Amino acid sequence: MLEALRESVCRANRMLPAYGLVCLTWGNVSAVDREHSVMFIKPSGLCYEEMRPEDMAAVDLQTGQVLEKGGRRPSVDTEIHLELYRAFPQINSVVHTHSRWATIWAQSGRSIPALGTTHADEFLGEVPCTRAMKAEEIQVNYERNTGRVLAETLRQREVFFSGAALARSHGPFTWGETPQKAVEVAVTLEMVADMAWHTALLCGGTAPHMMDELMNKHFYRKHGKDSYYGQL
Amino acid sequence: MLEALRESVCRANRMLPAYGLVCLTWGNVSAVDREHSVMFIKPSGLCYEEMRPEDMAAVDLQTGQVLEKGGRRPSVDTEIHLELYRAFPQINSVVHTHSRWATIWAQSGRSIPALGTTHADEFLGEVPCTRAMKAEEIQVNYERNTGRVLAETLRQREVFFSGAALARSHGPFTWGETPQKAVEVAVTLEMVADMAWHTALLCGGTAPHMMDELMNKHFYRKHGKDSYYGQL
Amino acid sequence: MLEALRESVCRANRMLPAYGLVCLTWGNVSAVDREHSVMFIKPSGLCYEEMRPEDMAAVDLQTGQVLEKGGRRPSVDTEIHLELYRAFPQINSVVHTHSRWATIWAQSGRSIPALGTTHADEFLGEVPCTRAMKAEEIQVNYERNTGRVLAETLRQREVFFSGAALARSHGPFTWGETPQKAVEVAVTLEMVADMAWHTALLCGGTAPHMMDELMNKHFYRKHGKDSYYGQL
Amino acid sequence: MLEALRESVCRANRMLPAYGLVCLTWGNVSAVDREHSVMFIKPSGLCYEEMRPEDMAAVDLQTGQVLEKGGRRPSVDTEIHLELYRAFPQINSVVHTHSRWATIWAQSGRSIPALGTTHADEFLGEVPCTRAMKAEEIQVNYERNTGRVLAETLRQREVFFSGAALARSHGPFTWGETPQKAVEVAVTLEMVADMAWHTALLCGGTAPHMMDELMNKHFYRKHGKDSYYGQL
Repeated sequence: MLEALRESVCRANRMLPAYGLVCLTWGNVSAVDREHSVMFIKPSGLCYEEMRPEDMAAVDLQTGQVLEKGGRRPSVDTEIHLELYRAFPQINSVVHTHSRWATIWAQSGRSIPALGTTHADEFLGEVPCTRAMKAEEIQVNYERNTGRVLAETLRQREVFFSGAALARSHGPFTWGETPQKAVEVAVTLEMVADMAWHTALLCGGTAPHMMDELMNKHFYRKHGKDSYYGQL
Repeated sequence: MLEALRESVCRANRMLPAYGLVCLTWGNVSAVDREHSVMFIKPSGLCYEEMRPEDMAAVDLQTGQVLEKGGRRPSVDTEIHLELYRAFPQINSVVHTHSRWATIWAQSGRSIPALGTTHADEFLGEVPCTRAMKAEEIQVNYERNTGRVLAETLRQREVFFSGAALARSHGPFTWGETPQKAVEVAVTLEMVADMAWHTALLCGGTAPHMMDELMNKHFYRKHGKDSYYGQL
Repeated sequence: MLEALRESVCRANRMLPAYGLVCLTWGNVSAVDREHSVMFIKPSGLCYEEMRPEDMAAVDLQTGQVLEKGGRRPSVDTEIHLELYRAFPQINSVVHTHSRWATIWAQSGRSIPALGTTHADEFLGEVPCTRAMKAEEIQVNYERNTGRVLAETLRQREVFFSGAALARSHGPFTWGETPQKAVEVAVTLEMVADMAWHTALLCGGTAPHMMDELMNKHFYRKHGKDSYYGQL
Repeated sequence: MLEALRESVCRANRMLPAYGLVCLTWGNVSAVDREHSVMFIKPSGLCYEEMRPEDMAAVDLQTGQVLEKGGRRPSVDTEIHLELYRAFPQINSVVHTHSRWATIWAQSGRSIPALGTTHADEFLGEVPCTRAMKAEEIQVNYERNTGRVLAETLRQREVFFSGAALARSHGPFTWGETPQKAVEVAVTLEMVADMAWHTALLCGGTAPHMMDELMNKHFYRKHGKDSYYGQL
């Protein structure tokens, strides 16, 4: 069970370069087994090509301690992932990248507006960007506070079984029930961020939001109990 | 004959990722055999790589009913395709994607202007964007109404044996005599939408249309009875 | 000799998709043997992958007549190529594409300004865009007149052994001593057009030209008798 | 030792097209062995695919003289590299390219501002663009003066063991302790320049700098004695 999760996390990490979401080593996927209170996450600074399941770092979900003697050091972003799992019990996998288009929105400090059905097929409403962190939040416990500011932003909205948010001046985080789904949301977010950027520019900098009726229609035809998308 | 059409629809669906027109599972090709009143269309939510001809869903052109017990569920966009076939007897294949550049124009609610000969080699005049749908058109029979609004937009213009339109806040639809041709129009549309976006931005947001004489010259040297393009 | 040229034209045509300069069948390379007064050019509407040397159409340089019974029909742009050869004896090969970035400048009706050393390493001064054609130039002998307007534009400037121009609302033409060189200029033009577009936008729509001294320095360290670039 | 360096320079040059940093032959990597006072650099105008270690040109670090009779001619940019090595003893490898995004900033004459953590993970503060060169600096000893103007710009700031600068109207230079590291900085610079361009445009032309605290945090968690990034 834990071994299957470890493999799944490794495979999901390797999907990041395959989908063009990362450059060099900039991105990491984690997943949790809440029963065993363990999180597996990409080791810090390692290349995706040479990563094997046994390289995934195992961390205690509550304490953040590395669980295996002699194992790899976990990603420097480990505490961000942990805070998201602690805040939202429905999240089982988290993806963080510096993917080009989502990072551009994060750098501009703007949430990604819902401008079309591609967006609404995955996200209900805008993809929020966090507030600026305070100097003291950066100087002490920076990574944990990054996670807390993400959680603070997300608590102001409905959180669904899938979703995304932007850490301001930093980059995107996405999550889902499985590592595969969390990566798929990261792929969708990137495409949506790309098209929103170009729509905004074509409209002189800011584009009008899509109609609420159209957004709800598209989100709920793919999500929730009345969904009619996909095979049975 | 029907089996050949089914294979052709499958092949055309697989051309979408090959031409970079789709991300994940977002796009579908259909084609009709009007004599047998049957439409074949991509099944809902299936990956392009694992799709075989027998996965194509068969739907009655008039009633929209799935024709084969135990077959795949057709695309959620099925009713949009059906409305286009019902409105325009000269259309035999329809392609719908969320291809990046055409979708950007659709999200901005703007028709794609004719700015150069690349456009005029395939499209006579702008590629139109539909009006916004009314709340009640979205809430009941959304997909059918999407098709009707596309047809309403197209009836206001000359429809040729090939062509394209944008569903506002959604994405492009293209069509042709064969699935291969409809995909080729989708490829052309994407390139034209890309270059129109960049031309518009270079001109401060809106670019002047090309000369009518030049547009007509290029369209008619490739289309219609006086065409002199290609091999005999 | 003629067979070698035919092969070279075929190979150069196949380089167009390899360098990302064409979509579908939109682009053609020709070359002339002035001694035999023959031009070889890509046949009209043929795919690059299936093209073999024997498919290249042979055309009389003076009359424009197809020279081989049963051969392929030459590109619809044949008369444009011929006019360029007639006007400029130093040109032996011509490339025409609808490559993305050069076409965007052509569609905007703007010459590509010299903004950096990448430009000046190949082009001395801006890459000129032709004037708009008159209605009567389009209606009768359109292709020949396209070539004449290109020649008219080029006569107003120094023409070097390599170079490029933009046909307004249409796309780029490049030329060189050999098909290989003409394609290389097309590759350089595309990169230069891309970076000029982005530089212009970053500068609010129009970027200041580079210093003349820097432009001349870079052009002449690679071209002409005082060049010191490359191996001996 | 020298042979290992020669191989390493060859390998790093071949990484340039692999990472999409060069078009045709536009880019060069060099490295020095300060003990032997020798610099290896890409030969002028050679294709990356056909380059072997023995093609790397060996040049005297102090005099700039080619060291091997019958060897390749070194890059025309050789004197720029030499000036950087003479000015900064801590630099052992230099990379120069005309990579798309960094060159766009160089052409606009603007330094690349620090807009997000991707930037700060590698660069402390903006990536500076040099002043315009004077006419006399271009006319005589152009390449050496290009290096001097780069050094003049860099002396005004802290120079770290890795870093980058833009030669105005020209393109980027990066450096590092090894050729591999200098290429990695060039890859990072390109990504950072790309995202900065798009962030600037989304913000109407100029984007607000990131918080200093956040910049310092990210730089120093990866660089210097208190770094906690990567494996031990």
